[in-house]
Amino acid sequence: MVKLIALYKQPEDQQKFDGHYFGTHAPITEKIPGLKKMEVTKIIGSPMGESEYYLLCEMYYEDKDALNTAMKTDEAKASGKDLMKFAGNLVTLMIGEEVNE
Amino acid sequence: MVKLIALYKQPEDQQKFDGHYFGTHAPITEKIPGLKKMEVTKIIGSPMGESEYYLLCEMYYEDKDALNTAMKTDEAKASGKDLMKFAGNLVTLMIGEEVNE
Repeated sequence: MVKLIALYKQPEDQQKFDGHYFGTHAPITEKIPGLKKMEVTKIIGSPMGESEYYLLCEMYYEDKDALNTAMKTDEAKASGKDLMKFAGNLVTLMIGEEVNE
Repeated sequence: MVKLIALYKQPEDQQKFDGHYFGTHAPITEKIPGLKKMEVTKIIGSPMGESEYYLLCEMYYEDKDALNTAMKTDEAKASGKDLMKFAGNLVTLMIGEEVNE
């Protein structure tokens, strides 16, 4: 499996971020064709205390081709546009491939 | 579930990093009592091209207490000591809690 990973830094206003994320952004993103699974993790700290990060979202696709195809859909474009609008300055995007040792 | 997340930046020498990570670090880490599941993801890029990150490791525990208890074991201390030695300047550690929408 391949996953698109979105790692968000702490927002200025957590309540406002959560409202938009769970109320608008996640529902748009879940509609992207080909998405197999979406896992959202709230960052609650680090072993050293606080963390500069706030939220991690992992979006799983069958393989790299499926992800590339998905990224070209209107649904993905709508998700990307929304992302840049509400968290363009907070998010780091990565593409990852699961390692089977 | 709660997870300890280790996100590594690109190492100078990927082959050397992989050798130590998969040959030494992962086997030490997998021995930590209470660890339910360990997922390793190779970062292969980003939607914009390259990524400054190289690897993501997610270590799952039953809950926050289980993670705290695990972190006090000799196995966790050995893993932490090894981590600081081979990738102290590359790694960001986070503690995350799965969100069930």
